[in-house]
Amino acid sequence: MGDNHDADQPIEGDHSMRARELMTQPVVTVRRETSLADVAKTMVDRRLGCVLVVNEEGKLCGIVTQTDFAAKERGVPFSIENLPQMFSRLSPREATAQVDDEARTTMAKEIMITEVITAAEDTPVEEMARQMLRYDIDHIPVVRDGVPVGMVARHDFLRMIAHAAEPT
Amino acid sequence: MGDNHDADQPIEGDHSMRARELMTQPVVTVRRETSLADVAKTMVDRRLGCVLVVNEEGKLCGIVTQTDFAAKERGVPFSIENLPQMFSRLSPREATAQVDDEARTTMAKEIMITEVITAAEDTPVEEMARQMLRYDIDHIPVVRDGVPVGMVARHDFLRMIAHAAEPT
Repeated sequence: MGDNHDADQPIEGDHSMRARELMTQPVVTVRRETSLADVAKTMVDRRLGCVLVVNEEGKLCGIVTQTDFAAKERGVPFSIENLPQMFSRLSPREATAQVDDEARTTMAKEIMITEVITAAEDTPVEEMARQMLRYDIDHIPVVRDGVPVGMVARHDFLRMIAHAAEPT
Repeated sequence: MGDNHDADQPIEGDHSMRARELMTQPVVTVRRETSLADVAKTMVDRRLGCVLVVNEEGKLCGIVTQTDFAAKERGVPFSIENLPQMFSRLSPREATAQVDDEARTTMAKEIMITEVITAAEDTPVEEMARQMLRYDIDHIPVVRDGVPVGMVARHDFLRMIAHAAEPT
């Protein structure tokens, strides 16, 4: 990734933390054909803000974030903005049935973002922090040969601060 | 909250879901004098995107989100943008010591946002969804007499979709 030195022989004064030291594993992935109902359930059950979409070879082909569920223009028939209104307009049974139907028939590939900002395992974390702020994103997948091997969330940077609260 | 009908006697056709049906409990609070180290540790340990700041009477006086840790202008000496650079500029021991020191001496009240969008327990969730989108926020605390009693996160709306994936 443009590093001009061997990772095993750090240049004096270069103490950069790398993506591999901050990333969480395992990564949670879904397929392009996974229904939005299953995508939402995965995110709720595992308390995630996003899931990665991979192809048959396990290579990254998109990302679905909770924000995408709010975006009408991304093809979600029940955006977060419209969802509650469906429940107020219809009976609970009708609204549930309609959401269920649409959530089961809409696929991850219909709403996923395909231009994903990624990092390599040896990307310095300061570069990832700058990208999060520049692109206003909360997650950067770490990939090796196109296959996601970890995830760095904005949340993970808090761990560097939280360390100070640990008893020494 | 401007409701012109008794919540126990819903108008026919009004099936609005209310904040109390979607909110999570208990709410996690810190004090104005809580150190940023403890704030960060609370958010990491409990996997939260924000904590509420309360005064001596338990009333809401501010909110700290993970995004605030990225905001230099909010008085964080080690913003998410600068934090990794400290670690690359200094030795790990020096950087850790400096972050530890600043994280222990900076208080929640120095970076908290005090103009908090809140809801009441009977606020319709569609109104909360609209506010999240309008103000680009992920969390709305639910308060009763100024005291936080629950939290609705953007994530919670996914539960309405995830329902469709449950076996029936």
